[in-house]
Order: sequence, then C-alpha cells, then structure tokens
Amino acid sequence: MLNVAVMGYGVVGSGVCEVIRTNAKSLSEKLGDRVEVKYVLDIKQVDPADPEASKITSDFEQILNDPEVMVVAEVMGGATFAYDYTKKLLLAGKHVVTSNKELVATKGTELLKIAKDHNVNYLFEASVGGGIPIIRPLYSCLAANEITRITGILNGTTNYILTKMFREGADFATALKEAQEKGYAERNPSADVDGIDACRKIAILASLVFGKEVECDKIKTVGITGITESDVAYAEAMDSVIKLIGQAELKDGKVYVSVEPRVIKKGTPLASIDDVFNGIMVNGNAIGEVVFYGPGAGKLPTASAVVADIIDCLRNDRNREYCWTPAENGFVADSENNFGQYLLITKDPASVEQKLTIRERITVTDGECAFVTEEITEKQLQTISNSILKYIKLC
Amino acid sequence: MLNVAVMGYGVVGSGVCEVIRTNAKSLSEKLGDRVEVKYVLDIKQVDPADPEASKITSDFEQILNDPEVMVVAEVMGGATFAYDYTKKLLLAGKHVVTSNKELVATKGTELLKIAKDHNVNYLFEASVGGGIPIIRPLYSCLAANEITRITGILNGTTNYILTKMFREGADFATALKEAQEKGYAERNPSADVDGIDACRKIAILASLVFGKEVECDKIKTVGITGITESDVAYAEAMDSVIKLIGQAELKDGKVYVSVEPRVIKKGTPLASIDDVFNGIMVNGNAIGEVVFYGPGAGKLPTASAVVADIIDCLRNDRNREYCWTPAENGFVADSENNFGQYLLITKDPASVEQKLTIRERITVTDGECAFVTEEITEKQLQTISNSILKYIKLC
Repeated sequence: MLNVAVMGYGVVGSGVCEVIRTNAKSLSEKLGDRVEVKYVLDIKQVDPADPEASKITSDFEQILNDPEVMVVAEVMGGATFAYDYTKKLLLAGKHVVTSNKELVATKGTELLKIAKDHNVNYLFEASVGGGIPIIRPLYSCLAANEITRITGILNGTTNYILTKMFREGADFATALKEAQEKGYAERNPSADVDGIDACRKIAILASLVFGKEVECDKIKTVGITGITESDVAYAEAMDSVIKLIGQAELKDGKVYVSVEPRVIKKGTPLASIDDVFNGIMVNGNAIGEVVFYGPGAGKLPTASAVVADIIDCLRNDRNREYCWTPAENGFVADSENNFGQYLLITKDPASVEQKLTIRERITVTDGECAFVTEEITEKQLQTISNSILKYIKLC
Repeated sequence: MLNVAVMGYGVVGSGVCEVIRTNAKSLSEKLGDRVEVKYVLDIKQVDPADPEASKITSDFEQILNDPEVMVVAEVMGGATFAYDYTKKLLLAGKHVVTSNKELVATKGTELLKIAKDHNVNYLFEASVGGGIPIIRPLYSCLAANEITRITGILNGTTNYILTKMFREGADFATALKEAQEKGYAERNPSADVDGIDACRKIAILASLVFGKEVECDKIKTVGITGITESDVAYAEAMDSVIKLIGQAELKDGKVYVSVEPRVIKKGTPLASIDDVFNGIMVNGNAIGEVVFYGPGAGKLPTASAVVADIIDCLRNDRNREYCWTPAENGFVADSENNFGQYLLITKDPASVEQKLTIRERITVTDGECAFVTEEITEKQLQTISNSILKYIKLC
C-alpha cells in the first residue's frame, strides 16, 4: 500500500481523490502497488456520504507524524498555512506535490532547497497550465536546449473574457459577468483580471528555465480591465486578436519579463487558443518552437497533474533536482528596458511621427489614429506618453 | 567527464554532436560534469575539418568495449545493424537512446525488456514527433490518466504536401515535387506518402500508452497518393481540410488503430497544424484533451530530443520502466470494425441513401454527389462499396 495525504478538500483536492479512486486499477498496474489516500486535511464539515468522509482530519500533525505517508498533495492554496505545513513535511522527509502557484512563486526557492537537502521532492506540475504538461517537459524533454523565450496564455479566466469580447463584441464588464456566472471567474476577480495569477505562473516558469528566482514584484504586470471595444476593433483591423500574455525572454544575461495584453496575429499558434484553454510556447536553440495546449484549470485536469507528480514520487523517490538559485539584483531587466513593437493610439499623429519611426498606420476613426511602431523600448515609449492615448504591445 | 557515443553521422547524428558542442556550458551546469562525444560510428569519409573528425570510428566493438561510454545514441536507422548493435549495448549494460522509429516499432518489445533486465534505459523520445516532447509526457505527466485516444499528424512530409494542395490548389504530384526540391521528401517518397512512417509512429504511441505491442502489420494504413483536387474541393465545401492522421483508440479492451487521410473541421486544434509541423492530441479521462505541437523532424529539433534522452540517462541511471508486453491476438481490432463518420463520394446517391443513414449531403458536381454518413463501421461501408467512388473518414 502506497499511502498519500491530501491537504485541502476543495475543487482540486476532491479532484485528486476522485482521480485516485477512478483510476485505482491502472495506477496499481503502473506502480505495482495500490495507492491509498490515507488522510484528507480540511477543517470544513464533509457530507458523511462523501467517499473520503472517513479520511477527513483537521489535525496536520497526524499527517506529519505518520511514517506511512510518503507523499502529500498540498492543494489548499495561500502562502501561510500551506507554507508552514509544506516546510515541516519536507523537513520530515516527505515528498510534497502542489498546485499552489502563489506558494511556489513566493517561497519556491527556499522549499526546493529544503527538498534537495532532504532528498525528497517538491513538485509543482499543476501550478502552471493546470493539466498541461509543462514543468517536466521544460526540465527534461527540452533539457538539451538553451531556452531563449517562453510565451504563454497562462490564465483561463482572462482568456475566456477576451475570447467573448472578440467573438461576440461583448464589453469587458459583460464578458466578466458571464465568466462569473459560469464559474470561470471568482466573485472578486482581481487575481485573474489584474494579471496576478499569470504573473505568478510566468515567475515560476522563468525561475525554472533561467535558473534564478524571478520575483513577482519585478515583473511588469498589466491586466485586461482596460481593454475596450475600440481596442478590439483596432486588433481586428490588424487581422489580430488580443490575449493576456506572460512572457520571459533571456537576452545578454538578463531576463525581460512581463504580463500584459498583447496584439497577436491570427494564424499564429497562440492566437487560436480560445475560451478557458491555456497555451504555452517555448523557444529553444535546438527545438526551435514548441507549443503545449490544453485545459489550464478545472478540477480533473489540475488533479491529473497533481496525481502525475504523486506517481513520479512513488516511482522513484530520489530528488528530481528542480531548483533555482535566489534572486539576484539586476537579473530581471528593469521594465523600462522591455522592448517590442507597439500598437499606439493617438489623437496627435504628427507629434508621434515626429518622435518615432512608424512601421504601419492602421486606421483612423473619430479623430483617433493608430500606429504600429518599429521595435522600441518602454523608455522610448514614455518619451511620447503625452502624445498617446494608449499602447498595446505586439506579440 | 561523461562519455557518450553516437552511432550514425547523418543528419540527426551530426545534429546530436552539434547540440552537445553548442550547449556544452549549459549541459555541464545541468549535469555537474562535462558531456563529451567520445566516438562517432560511421563508415563514410569525414572531412578532416569536421569538428568530430577525430572521433570517427568504423569499429563498433570499440564503443561496446569501452567502459567509459555510458550512453550511446543510435541514430543510424534501419533494423538490421541498428538492432544488432543496440541489443549488444544493452546487454553490456549501456544506455541506448534512439530516433529510430523502425527499430522501436518492430523490436521495441524485446529491446525494452532487455533494458529492464539490465537496469539500463532504451529511450526513444526522438522516434515520434521529432523534437516535440511526447513520449515522456505520456509516460509521466499524463500517468494519472487512463488514456483513451491518441490522434496525431505524425509525418511532416505528407503534412507539407497536403498543406500545399489546400493553400495553393497544387495537385499531389506537383506538391510532392516541391517537397522533394526543398529536401522535405526523399527521392523515393514511399515511406512518407504511403503512410509507413506514420504507421510506425502510431504503433509506438499505442504500444506505450495501452501497454501491449501494437504491430504495424495490424494497422490499417492508407497514404495520401490518392488525394485529388476534387477531394480538396469537397473538404473545403465542408469548411475542412484533409490531414494524414494516425489514431489509436481504446474501446472495450480493444485498440482501434489506423493511419489514413481524414477530413478535419477548420478551427479544431489539428486542422491548423500546417507545413512540416506535427501535432499530437491526447485524450485522457482526467485531462480531457491536450495537444503537443512543434517541429516533427529536422536536424536540430530531432537532436534536441535525442540529447534530452542522453541527459535523462546521465542524470539518473535507473531503468525508467518504459515497456509494453508482447502482441496478443485480438488486442488490435480488425480494421473492418474501425468506426467513424465518412465522407462518401458517389454517382449513385439513390443506392447509398437506400442502404445508409445519411447525416448531410454536401454538394453535387458533374453528376457526383457527396454525403456525410452517421457513425458506421468499415464493414458497413464495404456493403455499399459498389455504389461509391471513394470514401474519406472524418476526424
């Protein structure tokens, strides 16, 4: 019997239990022994008819002190109790797997180091891209590459909202309301629509791939609340869509990283990733470009990734050596040095054309004019901030 | 120093050496020691200015008997010498990694068993999908799932030809000629255009995922040589494209597997995978659907996958337990039981409508008529074979 514990019996936690129950037979075949959820940690009441009712405990020490528990899935979220518990479990020589992006993004450096020192694993496949395999492929399948860039649609809620705005001409508020009604957005949608969730995810990916912690507060983060029907119209005139993109790029030893809405040409791989799906494009010096696409959230897809990490720990209990070194000043480029082409919207085209080289003039409506710039830095953009109403970066 | 050998100094072999040279520094950082190609096995003359010239040997025994060589990349192709060498290396306790789909598809069962018995690895990430991570994600990231179906565009050459036919209205012969001029197709293109290459790849994926060998000669395999401009026109009328699809599906304990041109609705993930790219869609009972997209062939992408497997063996020299059991009679369903919807082209619509339930009538030209059927088996299709000119399965 392979005993595991699940901390947090919410959407993901119940999904983890369900996957282990439903696929019990095939998991046994893969592992040569039966996987059993021995404890489920939660403080809330559970229906006695719930299949895991007998396993519910509110006593973390029970899990910590049970030598039979080899792997613990932390799917409770947050960075307070989850941090305390994870640290204690790793120190006690238990593997921890998690879907908790906040904790990985903020405390991953420390927790991975503890895991390594105690020859156990702290695995976090489910923290980015839900069920999409991305962490392990980056670490192993693409290990021969020097990864130069990662570009992703990392948040399903905002992708759903933007898809609605493009397909149906809905405005932001209407699309958000519908996302909330469908259960894709929280009542307080800030973590999603302000880009905080995507920021944590790109921080994790960038830290893993570039080997040094990329702190969330160093990442330029702009959400989608400011996207208007007029922006949609400009993007459409460019045969493009707008997606909330997290991107990290290594150039001359520095990481340029951001989360912001970007204009993406239709027909390119990320442009066609719609609704609540996520997609992650990886560029490496041998592979060229590869894209991973799938459900970025949801009970069973996320549980699929958590349980895969559990299986990995049960198959081979050596430390997997996922790690990155602590943050270093200057490693993340100041966002004013971020570079790219921009869509500029202005009422003062003459002034813009005087100060910047323009590649393309898009359309004119209502006295507004839109330009596509050559590649420039945000600093250069700031020099004309008085002349422009708005800018959106191209992807 | 971590010594490896490369057998075969063709396109992939030279790519493997190039990736190891180019990324020497980052590989050292990942592995804590330098990776060195100690031998390159080939019988052909090599330019003395070639960076690997000093390592060329035509003597396989030198590699086999050198205890310093821990991992050997077999990228020579074929199933004769490659088989003999691989077997000897595994028996001698060396890891072998390969891009050789023919060998994995025909001898994988035996070679994986030998690898397991000697606690070494026989890894084959590069054998399917070129540089796209697919073998390892199927084995590890999606391990929590019961995989129900794999559907892939597995051959870049035929995808290039079909893309040309759809985009430019080229006929098959013209598109093939252009593929040959660009180096995407061999002078003798049979392995690609007749579906043999895709057949080997779906055999490998199906064997890995369903745990029992799926033999190539049990797989219904139809190439793209019969696809005409008229088929293209019918597909376009259905807002669809035609792709050469390898598919394996588990249903009631049997695998339904085929390689054939299929009509795919535009806007679905595989329909937009064009040119020489490959894409593989995996359906599992927890993940739902996930898609892997990238370069399915080419020197550096394929080398990227081979070198990833080398790194995996060097990081952790335990057997990875990739394996499947020998073929069993009746596991692969007889192809007459394959089922699906079909596009039928007929000059005798009355006879077809009499015998089959029709879902949709597409268009009529020149006395021809095209129907889309309900889901039927190939056996049912055969009962009306006298009444139809051609059929193409939907995807």
